Amino acid sequence: MKVEKTVEKIEKMEIRGASDIARATAEALKQKSKKLEANSVEDAISELGDSADRLLKSRPTAVSLPNAIRKVFNGLKETGSVEEFRELAIQNSDEFIEKSKVAKQKIGEIGSKRIKDGDKVLTHCNSEAALSIFKSAKDEGKEFEVFSTEARPRYQGRITAQDLVNEGISVTQIVDSAARFFMNEMDLVVVGADAIGANGAVANKIGTSQIALVAKEARVDFYVAAETYKFSPSTVLGELIEIEERDEEEVWENKPDDVEIRNPAFDFTPPRYVDNICTEIGLISPHMAYHVLKEEFGLGLQDVL
Amino acid sequence: MKVEKTVEKIEKMEIRGASDIARATAEALKQKSKKLEANSVEDAISELGDSADRLLKSRPTAVSLPNAIRKVFNGLKETGSVEEFRELAIQNSDEFIEKSKVAKQKIGEIGSKRIKDGDKVLTHCNSEAALSIFKSAKDEGKEFEVFSTEARPRYQGRITAQDLVNEGISVTQIVDSAARFFMNEMDLVVVGADAIGANGAVANKIGTSQIALVAKEARVDFYVAAETYKFSPSTVLGELIEIEERDEEEVWENKPDDVEIRNPAFDFTPPRYVDNICTEIGLISPHMAYHVLKEEFGLGLQDVL
Amino acid sequence: MKVEKTVEKIEKMEIRGASDIARATAEALKQKSKKLEANSVEDAISELGDSADRLLKSRPTAVSLPNAIRKVFNGLKETGSVEEFRELAIQNSDEFIEKSKVAKQKIGEIGSKRIKDGDKVLTHCNSEAALSIFKSAKDEGKEFEVFSTEARPRYQGRITAQDLVNEGISVTQIVDSAARFFMNEMDLVVVGADAIGANGAVANKIGTSQIALVAKEARVDFYVAAETYKFSPSTVLGELIEIEERDEEEVWENKPDDVEIRNPAFDFTPPRYVDNICTEIGLISPHMAYHVLKEEFGLGLQDVL
Amino acid sequence: MKVEKTVEKIEKMEIRGASDIARATAEALKQKSKKLEANSVEDAISELGDSADRLLKSRPTAVSLPNAIRKVFNGLKETGSVEEFRELAIQNSDEFIEKSKVAKQKIGEIGSKRIKDGDKVLTHCNSEAALSIFKSAKDEGKEFEVFSTEARPRYQGRITAQDLVNEGISVTQIVDSAARFFMNEMDLVVVGADAIGANGAVANKIGTSQIALVAKEARVDFYVAAETYKFSPSTVLGELIEIEERDEEEVWENKPDDVEIRNPAFDFTPPRYVDNICTEIGLISPHMAYHVLKEEFGLGLQDVL
Amino acid sequence: MKVEKTVEKIEKMEIRGASDIARATAEALKQKSKKLEANSVEDAISELGDSADRLLKSRPTAVSLPNAIRKVFNGLKETGSVEEFRELAIQNSDEFIEKSKVAKQKIGEIGSKRIKDGDKVLTHCNSEAALSIFKSAKDEGKEFEVFSTEARPRYQGRITAQDLVNEGISVTQIVDSAARFFMNEMDLVVVGADAIGANGAVANKIGTSQIALVAKEARVDFYVAAETYKFSPSTVLGELIEIEERDEEEVWENKPDDVEIRNPAFDFTPPRYVDNICTEIGLISPHMAYHVLKEEFGLGLQDVL
Amino acid sequence: MKVEKTVEKIEKMEIRGASDIARATAEALKQKSKKLEANSVEDAISELGDSADRLLKSRPTAVSLPNAIRKVFNGLKETGSVEEFRELAIQNSDEFIEKSKVAKQKIGEIGSKRIKDGDKVLTHCNSEAALSIFKSAKDEGKEFEVFSTEARPRYQGRITAQDLVNEGISVTQIVDSAARFFMNEMDLVVVGADAIGANGAVANKIGTSQIALVAKEARVDFYVAAETYKFSPSTVLGELIEIEERDEEEVWENKPDDVEIRNPAFDFTPPRYVDNICTEIGLISPHMAYHVLKEEFGLGLQDVL
Repeated sequence: MKVEKTVEKIEKMEIRGASDIARATAEALKQKSKKLEANSVEDAISELGDSADRLLKSRPTAVSLPNAIRKVFNGLKETGSVEEFRELAIQNSDEFIEKSKVAKQKIGEIGSKRIKDGDKVLTHCNSEAALSIFKSAKDEGKEFEVFSTEARPRYQGRITAQDLVNEGISVTQIVDSAARFFMNEMDLVVVGADAIGANGAVANKIGTSQIALVAKEARVDFYVAAETYKFSPSTVLGELIEIEERDEEEVWENKPDDVEIRNPAFDFTPPRYVDNICTEIGLISPHMAYHVLKEEFGLGLQDVL
Repeated sequence: MKVEKTVEKIEKMEIRGASDIARATAEALKQKSKKLEANSVEDAISELGDSADRLLKSRPTAVSLPNAIRKVFNGLKETGSVEEFRELAIQNSDEFIEKSKVAKQKIGEIGSKRIKDGDKVLTHCNSEAALSIFKSAKDEGKEFEVFSTEARPRYQGRITAQDLVNEGISVTQIVDSAARFFMNEMDLVVVGADAIGANGAVANKIGTSQIALVAKEARVDFYVAAETYKFSPSTVLGELIEIEERDEEEVWENKPDDVEIRNPAFDFTPPRYVDNICTEIGLISPHMAYHVLKEEFGLGLQDVL
Repeated sequence: MKVEKTVEKIEKMEIRGASDIARATAEALKQKSKKLEANSVEDAISELGDSADRLLKSRPTAVSLPNAIRKVFNGLKETGSVEEFRELAIQNSDEFIEKSKVAKQKIGEIGSKRIKDGDKVLTHCNSEAALSIFKSAKDEGKEFEVFSTEARPRYQGRITAQDLVNEGISVTQIVDSAARFFMNEMDLVVVGADAIGANGAVANKIGTSQIALVAKEARVDFYVAAETYKFSPSTVLGELIEIEERDEEEVWENKPDDVEIRNPAFDFTPPRYVDNICTEIGLISPHMAYHVLKEEFGLGLQDVL
Repeated sequence: MKVEKTVEKIEKMEIRGASDIARATAEALKQKSKKLEANSVEDAISELGDSADRLLKSRPTAVSLPNAIRKVFNGLKETGSVEEFRELAIQNSDEFIEKSKVAKQKIGEIGSKRIKDGDKVLTHCNSEAALSIFKSAKDEGKEFEVFSTEARPRYQGRITAQDLVNEGISVTQIVDSAARFFMNEMDLVVVGADAIGANGAVANKIGTSQIALVAKEARVDFYVAAETYKFSPSTVLGELIEIEERDEEEVWENKPDDVEIRNPAFDFTPPRYVDNICTEIGLISPHMAYHVLKEEFGLGLQDVL
Repeated sequence: MKVEKTVEKIEKMEIRGASDIARATAEALKQKSKKLEANSVEDAISELGDSADRLLKSRPTAVSLPNAIRKVFNGLKETGSVEEFRELAIQNSDEFIEKSKVAKQKIGEIGSKRIKDGDKVLTHCNSEAALSIFKSAKDEGKEFEVFSTEARPRYQGRITAQDLVNEGISVTQIVDSAARFFMNEMDLVVVGADAIGANGAVANKIGTSQIALVAKEARVDFYVAAETYKFSPSTVLGELIEIEERDEEEVWENKPDDVEIRNPAFDFTPPRYVDNICTEIGLISPHMAYHVLKEEFGLGLQDVL
Repeated sequence: MKVEKTVEKIEKMEIRGASDIARATAEALKQKSKKLEANSVEDAISELGDSADRLLKSRPTAVSLPNAIRKVFNGLKETGSVEEFRELAIQNSDEFIEKSKVAKQKIGEIGSKRIKDGDKVLTHCNSEAALSIFKSAKDEGKEFEVFSTEARPRYQGRITAQDLVNEGISVTQIVDSAARFFMNEMDLVVVGADAIGANGAVANKIGTSQIALVAKEARVDFYVAAETYKFSPSTVLGELIEIEERDEEEVWENKPDDVEIRNPAFDFTPPRYVDNICTEIGLISPHMAYHVLKEEFGLGLQDVL
């Protein structure tokens, strides 16, 4: 798909979800690379950079999008010719797409080893990476039970419950407020992430951080399942992960006139409440986030664009 | 209203709410006292005791009901004649009803002194005692803002929001999961109570305890507003305050077949997370619960029935 | 038994255990009261006071002993004649002995309500009051499991294990160091007490306080089972509960010469780690200790002797 | 001294310090009582009440002043004649004055039992009650060392250091910021109090609460030494203890024009950081504050004036 | 020694202890390398891999064993001939053996710098790395005292006490339960490790984690002394460090029939309770474990076998 | 400037401050390099090493000084000729000087992104790196307010207040003891660092660690602003960062004879209280300190000298 088309689809949210956006971005840059008109590496950088720039603006808050761009641009400046540039760009794109496809599966394999027969595991909202862990554990024949919060205001927890039931996994739905009531029965909490900052703070669906606190109070391990492209390089340079405030109708349709609504979509879980981040490159301490960012992406988008 | 009628209305939940149940109970015992057929104090105890027994069974989990009975029976055994018995029973009933009527107002007056101009105060669910504090503060001309959670599954927080708007108090509605997101902005949390145990643990709407924990994490004072008849004498003798599990339809109408629902109505907030209980007899530490129970009710229903 | 004989038996530890010492003390004072030679109340106070003094010195660290004396002396000063003095002293003694006999049973009845079917309960060392709770729960037909630490150096936990097995209660023995390993599985911790201070601190077998800390870390309720005569009135006046250092042979027989041994018998659990003290007068917050002391014993032995 | 004179001296701060204000107040009411012109108890109440009112306004934030008034008025309403009224008022005044004189000494005797040979004890600011503990311990022949903060901005810690040196007690002066640096070496912290609220919160010299937090972090016991007339009855009814903001010159003489200064004199230490309050009626948990208030003062000034 | 012989001795526990197992493994692979029959690098990998496989199975839970194999196999795949393969395998083996020999000494030199004259240091169980620190400190002329727990059920703490006495170091033996009693006197805790996980969790002798918690409660630094080959690469991929449950006779010989025994050998100390891990490559935060694993061993054994 | 002159000026504190010392050291080594008399690389190492040695001794506790030396010596051993050696030494010196100059500016740019309009930010003492953040935020047009402690005993907080006022930034000065009083109003704390240890512990002006604790208690983010040359490589090898005890006159001029003064200049803030370290290479978790040390300086000075 061409860059313009991809931009359009991301903007219209026809392409959505961190993984799909990332792969579409890499694919669009690959297509662009095939048709570069530049005569020098310098021009090629500039030409492909323009495309990257347009893609970046299609969804400024998605952390996986600039990460895909970083991966595609890796080493392009050091190429000796436009041809070499093109080949490397295509190769980088293909590799990123391939790796992102297997990442979820690897997270499942790694994380599922921490689920034991008889366990009760709490999850919040709807995370593909977290579900991958539950599915792997089920595939390995483990008997366990998932407690799933409803995740107001959009009830994504119901999607999770439905997904788990479809996989034949026992699931109990509770309201978000009941997390502490049941926490002492839990053996583990597993949630996903929208973005992970340079100091290991985890941005995820509103309510995640209070579940993490409640887990810590009861000495229950709290795991975050996330592909490495959820780590946000720009936070190293101080950028804040932006917290989207969503439509008040999600919270209360036909609310009384004078009632104000606040509807933040995410909150931040501090690293001290996170026992492990389960990524495709293994289990890591959240305090290793800077290291992951440096190894995986280098540390500045400004060098690219 | 007669005992039978009162029992019926409580059972059908036509009479509901801790205060209304308590007053109806005292009123029914008063009416019964007027028409006692007993010829001795001993018989009078037995006759009025039968009525108390029927009332008790109408709502076994309401803590205010046995407390009203205790208040009415106070000193009856020591009376010297049926006439004296009747007079004291009527007097006790009247006093209890009168005191319960002013209790909410007094709580408002006491608690409102802790609200300052410019404060942001978080509340959870719908508590008359907590609302009384907000109304008193408003009446005293204070400018402040209330953040009100929605209190899934039954959205009683919307009633709170409507009540506050009706009083001209600024109110912001948030989902239950957003408590931690906003906590650092709050100056105070005020919630009500369904029952308070002998060691100061507070039974209240599901979600209260995790808000208390979140408040403590951010060093925000957590107040419970409660009439003294919310303190549960039977917990002194080890009885547990029962946690009602409510209908799963409240959580998810038309849920998928294999999804289980757990819907506990209350949770317990440990006393170490409660900075003050605001009662009609003043602000007290939750650790004083045993003292309150002893002073207000004596310590055993068994002596009565 | 006469005072001299009682003193001797306490000193030789033929009479031991807080309850037995307390009852023997009351009994001795009762016998003495029967044979008072005094001609005035003043002389009677002095005569019985001498006996009390000898008893006190027989075991200076036993908190139940002075408490028994306080109970026997209650109101004696206000009596109008030696005869009245004698009668009250005998009555006080009988009442104390009777009450102390039923105290353990009442603690069992009250505390057992907090054990539910399927619970796992941890205990440490060998406490009659704690055992009474387990036995009551068993008698009520509850199915539960007790984890019992061994309680080095004297292995009193083995006595507990044997007692529980005799009662038909499931018991698992673990080393003291394994408390944290198993804590997340526990539903409750119940221990006894040697003495309770004015601010609610609990003196009990060495190791108790770290189990309390471990329980708090995992949000597991920590209960202390103790008769009210374990509360120490002298701590109100600042006296420290003395920590006995016992024989080093208990820790290591035939130890190498240059190795030093420290063998303190008790430690203190701060009140903030104790969720409930289960006494014969009900469940109370440890922070109510001063109140209990005042109600039960008044607040100074100096007024007596 | 007459009421008018006393009012004047308190206003001019010629009479200052919680104890001196309290005793002067009682003395003034005693003198007034001797010269009452009233012909009925009702009028006497009103006449003495006027004096009490004027005294109250002389220093609205001193908690010991209304407490002295409460003690003097105790039972006056129930007297049967002006003569009886006068006698009781005089007796109440004398008793209060006498008790307040011995209170400090008793606090010293009780608290000093918690200081052991070789101890290091930290104190903050300049508290007579805390000093009384150190002096008693010294008198008992104990060898210990006091670390004294300087207590900016007014350096009252230097007065403490001088007082201790005068008593022959070893003292080390440190800056306020060094409390955490030395805390692990300390065995105990002892501070005074300006006022104690209904829930046990302690108002004392700015900086006290962070020392309490630092003590808790290092598991060092934190004691407050305070006469019972430091407990504030009005806080039961919700009144806040007012925090005086003092002159900015205290903090920075000749500060640059655009620099703002904030100079609060007190802060609040939450009861969960206080292990014991050492009063003349014994060591108590801060959570017993409501109980102390009720026993010592009853619970409302409005009944008096 | 040949592979077969080494396997046998490890299985019979004639070779035991993390260090000895690791070195024997490297030595066996070195001997095997000398006698490889392979004609290609591919075959050599396979042949030496078979030996590694047999060694791995001799003690599946020892983390140092696969780490030794990883070190020996480092770079073998990239060799160009069997001869080169052989040389590198031998060189790798020799280097690993040499490094492991000096590791303990280096840990001693580094860790001893954190012991000051007059310190009291707590240790638990019997760790060679921890002892190396104490010995270095002694060699440097420092005067300090070690408190050593007994480490039930096998009393390895007695070996520690004997070792320390032999070195002329002051040692005090306490029961495991007394750790909290003495913690406020301690300046440091130093323990060893059986294995360290990818997120920094430390597996060590049962009881270690509650001592760590007790140290944190009293703000006492908690150090783990461990060679880098104690870090477990397989935990990066989610594998759990297995907790051996040992013979019940260790806990209670001739126990009553119906008493069950649980005897786990290790527990896990979460990284948030560990202030430093003292390794031969320096002091590191436990949160750096992933980094250490990556630098020292790469991250997957599957690439080797 | 020549080595001798530089040594002299550092000793006389004419050159002071971590940055100025570091740059003067690099400059001196550069000048020395230009005039090396050595005929071999080996001799050059020795000759330049002598200079480095003299510089090191001029201020043994300044962590930036050995870090500058490390940077200058980077790769010198691997040079092939004296000429190459000289060129690299000069180049290394120039690079270090240049980088150190921009580091403060970069820290400002990165950190200022974490300050939002309307924020209140607390700082302690006088840190150039922290001030750089405030200045950047001001330059970006943000409206915020700084609370500045006075930093007894030397009142460096007054310098901070004056600096901020000069920049047109709102500033409020408070005593050190008032940090907890105002903490709940703060949005962020930013302080500097004198040195950062291998496990992330931060040595900074006395009082920093209790402000960090107070910030954590109120869930306020605590940032440290520090150039990477503040990280101390020698702590990896166990060396302790030395805490200077300064003149007692700073605390109390003309103190009474028998009062002792303790005046430590720094304290340590444990990494668990630090949310972010803001360096010129980005925001990092304090737990990454070992990683930073390894990347920036390698891990041992002994290889150099």
